[in-house]
Amino acid sequence: MATGKINVSVENIFPLIKKFLYSDHEIFLRELISNATDATLKLKHLTSIGEAKVEYGNPRIEVKVDKDKKQIHILDQGIGMTEDEVKKYINEVAFSGAEEFLDKYKDAGKDSGIIGHFGLGFYSAFMVADKVEIITKSFKDEPAVHWTCDGSPEFTLTKAKKEDRGTEIILHVAEDSTEFLEDTKIRELLTKYNKFMPIPIKFGMKTETLPKPEGAKEEDPAPTQEVDDIINNPTPAWTKKPSDLNEEDYKGFYRELYPMQFEEPLFNIHLNVDYPFNLTGILYFPKLTNDLNIQKDRIQLYQNQVFVTDNVEGIVPEFLTMLRGVIDSPDIPLNVSRSYLQADGAVKKISTYITKKVADKLNSLFKNNREDFEQKWNDIKVVIEYGMLSEEKFFEKADKFALYPTVDGKYFTYEELETKIKDNQTDKDDKLVVLYASDKEAQHSYIQAAKAKGYEVLLLDSPIVSHLMQKLETSKEKLSFARVDADHVDNLIKKEDTAISKLSDEEKEKLKGEIEGIVQEKGFTIQMEAMDSSASPFIITEPEFMRRMKEMQQTGGGGMFGMGNMPEMYNLIVNTNHELVGEILNTKTSKKRERLINQSLDLARLSKGLLKGEELTNFIARSYEMIK
Amino acid sequence: MATGKINVSVENIFPLIKKFLYSDHEIFLRELISNATDATLKLKHLTSIGEAKVEYGNPRIEVKVDKDKKQIHILDQGIGMTEDEVKKYINEVAFSGAEEFLDKYKDAGKDSGIIGHFGLGFYSAFMVADKVEIITKSFKDEPAVHWTCDGSPEFTLTKAKKEDRGTEIILHVAEDSTEFLEDTKIRELLTKYNKFMPIPIKFGMKTETLPKPEGAKEEDPAPTQEVDDIINNPTPAWTKKPSDLNEEDYKGFYRELYPMQFEEPLFNIHLNVDYPFNLTGILYFPKLTNDLNIQKDRIQLYQNQVFVTDNVEGIVPEFLTMLRGVIDSPDIPLNVSRSYLQADGAVKKISTYITKKVADKLNSLFKNNREDFEQKWNDIKVVIEYGMLSEEKFFEKADKFALYPTVDGKYFTYEELETKIKDNQTDKDDKLVVLYASDKEAQHSYIQAAKAKGYEVLLLDSPIVSHLMQKLETSKEKLSFARVDADHVDNLIKKEDTAISKLSDEEKEKLKGEIEGIVQEKGFTIQMEAMDSSASPFIITEPEFMRRMKEMQQTGGGGMFGMGNMPEMYNLIVNTNHELVGEILNTKTSKKRERLINQSLDLARLSKGLLKGEELTNFIARSYEMIK
Repeated sequence: MATGKINVSVENIFPLIKKFLYSDHEIFLRELISNATDATLKLKHLTSIGEAKVEYGNPRIEVKVDKDKKQIHILDQGIGMTEDEVKKYINEVAFSGAEEFLDKYKDAGKDSGIIGHFGLGFYSAFMVADKVEIITKSFKDEPAVHWTCDGSPEFTLTKAKKEDRGTEIILHVAEDSTEFLEDTKIRELLTKYNKFMPIPIKFGMKTETLPKPEGAKEEDPAPTQEVDDIINNPTPAWTKKPSDLNEEDYKGFYRELYPMQFEEPLFNIHLNVDYPFNLTGILYFPKLTNDLNIQKDRIQLYQNQVFVTDNVEGIVPEFLTMLRGVIDSPDIPLNVSRSYLQADGAVKKISTYITKKVADKLNSLFKNNREDFEQKWNDIKVVIEYGMLSEEKFFEKADKFALYPTVDGKYFTYEELETKIKDNQTDKDDKLVVLYASDKEAQHSYIQAAKAKGYEVLLLDSPIVSHLMQKLETSKEKLSFARVDADHVDNLIKKEDTAISKLSDEEKEKLKGEIEGIVQEKGFTIQMEAMDSSASPFIITEPEFMRRMKEMQQTGGGGMFGMGNMPEMYNLIVNTNHELVGEILNTKTSKKRERLINQSLDLARLSKGLLKGEELTNFIARSYEMIK
Repeated sequence: MATGKINVSVENIFPLIKKFLYSDHEIFLRELISNATDATLKLKHLTSIGEAKVEYGNPRIEVKVDKDKKQIHILDQGIGMTEDEVKKYINEVAFSGAEEFLDKYKDAGKDSGIIGHFGLGFYSAFMVADKVEIITKSFKDEPAVHWTCDGSPEFTLTKAKKEDRGTEIILHVAEDSTEFLEDTKIRELLTKYNKFMPIPIKFGMKTETLPKPEGAKEEDPAPTQEVDDIINNPTPAWTKKPSDLNEEDYKGFYRELYPMQFEEPLFNIHLNVDYPFNLTGILYFPKLTNDLNIQKDRIQLYQNQVFVTDNVEGIVPEFLTMLRGVIDSPDIPLNVSRSYLQADGAVKKISTYITKKVADKLNSLFKNNREDFEQKWNDIKVVIEYGMLSEEKFFEKADKFALYPTVDGKYFTYEELETKIKDNQTDKDDKLVVLYASDKEAQHSYIQAAKAKGYEVLLLDSPIVSHLMQKLETSKEKLSFARVDADHVDNLIKKEDTAISKLSDEEKEKLKGEIEGIVQEKGFTIQMEAMDSSASPFIITEPEFMRRMKEMQQTGGGGMFGMGNMPEMYNLIVNTNHELVGEILNTKTSKKRERLINQSLDLARLSKGLLKGEELTNFIARSYEMIK
């Protein structure tokens, strides 16, 4: 038996780093600026605990592009490295310097905000550069050093003349990466990844307008000056205490995050937890439309103020991906896959926490300013209803503040609705029947009929509301929902009383037969019903169960298999107590009877939105004739 | 000055491999089976050129899971390794064995189909295993060896008893990866990544039904037998020559790819190119709906029969991501990012090639069986129209076969349409006016009016058709599109002839004033027009320009800024030659005149789909009164 040590041949490591380390080459800039930030924060920490006897000052990071020389420079004023440290941290690939540092200063570690992947990140420079130089001077009293490597594993190390503390990285950009020599590209990357990093980052100069001197004329141009262009905000709102921020600060930060977004957010939720995991952030509720697909992926994920991704799937519960804002957590691993995230325990806890925070915030908004909450309901209901459907814990909390608007603009909680309608809308089987419309205009005549009976009619028009009703019916006892056009108004909520018909059973049978003959090919099922004489003579209804199953299938999932493609089914209700129906029966000539039946049917179809195309054109032509 | 060699400390490589090498841990199985396939294909190649004096036979790969022992075994009957080869290929991380092999047998390389990332892939085993064993026997006459490594860089190497040629990998699955000990999980991964790999892969047994023996009774159960369960199809359709495949083969392969898809594809495109890049594949046109968002990401990308991804964004032009099928190319790099792909020259060429192939195929379908092409048009038009808008090269080709259907079910190419309508539909400014409807039902009366003039009316109902019309109007000369309800029929295509009005100018002014007074708050612009007396008395129109700009903004991009939120604008055309209009003028009491105007307006609004809600309910109630 032989034993040995697996050997990693360094010749093969560089191509590997280039190919596999990060799938996005542009990440190099994020990594190098993270290192620079790291080096600066380390110095801050060491000066604060007295281990570094130097002035911390107001250090910043600078990025410079020299297009002619094909170079990118990244300079910091941080801790720097001695020759020994370069040998240790740079010449040994994958030796995590940050880890050792954190080990040493464990207790103070959290607050010093060290990013923690120093060491490996540096080599990402070789993804875009064929030669890299480091010129660095430590805060310790040691000479500066100059390290150079051309991408082979050979390096050179010499003394350097640098006088001031800190590190300069020089990238000699490779031929296949010259896009990174464009100012606009670098600015784009800095804005994407480093916009909220904790140390100021300078990139070039910008022109600032100064106030006009006293006594200047109106036509005089305002004086200007060239100042450093600092591309980042080192103290974004989410890093501050909620008590230090007012409404305007939150709105201002929203504009910082989404400069192209003109609409203001409805409200925000400040996240702040340090046990059992670290997480800060601000979530915003934007105005939402009913289209569920287009508004995802606006939440930005940061790790210690470094942008990671705007795809938070798996970290935030699905229904909250429609919100906007920022989540920052050192506990979310960088550069790992979705499937890994979804299995990660810490990530699951984060998801649960965020759900709870959102529910609590909504509840306090509801309690503290109900009127405002009602006004915003239409813009936020999609998230809440989606959450109620997909997260049981959220459903329990939301049941207290979810609102059910009526067609008249009143808003009830479920409990209030129940109290309000239970006397008038409980049917003979002791079931509470909630009536609703999905479209105030299209279902107008049906809504009117229900309101005439003193019923409340909800307006439920979200795309997933059929699923929500299904859920409510199964989680509450003795409850059913019915759309106002699901049956004629006397049948929507069945009570004990029997109606008296003006027509005899014989007359009904005769008329039914005649109508059936005429409307047969149109696919209606005829029902003769003794209704109020003021109700319409003909009414078309669409049974609740079938319609809802179809809708549920069409909005994805649920319903019953194959229902989505079933044809619509309609009933034609004939009100045997209406004057016109009596008239039809008493009309002598069958041609006239047929004309009356057809015209009544057309009007009923018009009321239900079913009269279209050629039939509508003919109806209109006939009607013009009748006016003349 | 000092020089030196960058040192990679092996202690840090294993955690790195685990964390960074692949973001998806499940990839380990794909990598190990790729290696096994590789080893088998190498043997095939060596036997074929006479360098290996052994029988190639019918080798296969086997995967076994031992849940009790927490082990996964992967066995192949390939080339195997000698002790020296283990030391060289396994103990030296990142030493690419395949590369050396390919170098040696360069000329024969392509046909032997070697996957080419052997070496590194093996270490992905440590993503899920805390101990890995290799038992391997080379095809050469040397003893078998047994290699073991527990994830530290230490390994042991001993002689083994294995008699038959090939390699067995044993993974001792780590505690955090026990999900991979589930049969269902392994089967899922094999099906996802290895379904079409070129060497048969066995995973367990399955029951096969045999034909009944002669003389068996009907009630006798058919005999069964246990057979090896081969999970893959080693020779999927795209690896065959088009001339060896018939229509049924293509359909069968579609079912293999999408077993849950019941609808058959409309047609397929077999891709096959070997210069300047290698690419094979089969694309299918499925039936498409008008919803552009939901049907993307069905094309599967393979690299030498190994599944890579089903996100082909960046490889296939955007408009073709709605298709289905397979693309296989060794030139598409594995494990790289989208942004890298988009910048890659080879990938761009692939995209151009696929676009051209699709256009050519569509053209030949159109030419060879126009009737069939017409029947399929509705199901494929979204892709073609989208392609015409987004790829100029595709536009030029598609202009020959893109179809314009009429409301009567005829189909014209643009050239045919032009020939057909130019006499009757060229206006006085020498502009060709193409009339269209977007909804046969809703615009029925307007379509009728246009047809009565002998005009052709197209039915253009795709979601992006307003953008396409805009494009056609700018790329063709003297062409404009107008929807049938954009103006009254005499104005849609303006000709020289002047119409004679039955009303005098004075009468017109008087009537116009009265109508304006009544319809004012409804926001219509009144136009008095001398039309044919058989045309409707009142007609509502919606000017083309404004409507189209609004539509373009709503379907994303184009149009004019801010138009999306403008209110609809309608004209009310009064036909001064209609009998009813004369009657209104001659009606003495103003109350009666008002009633006639209101009822006519309601009918015109009904015809344009504008009479809704309470106004519709009132109109219906009034109409019931009138029948009685």
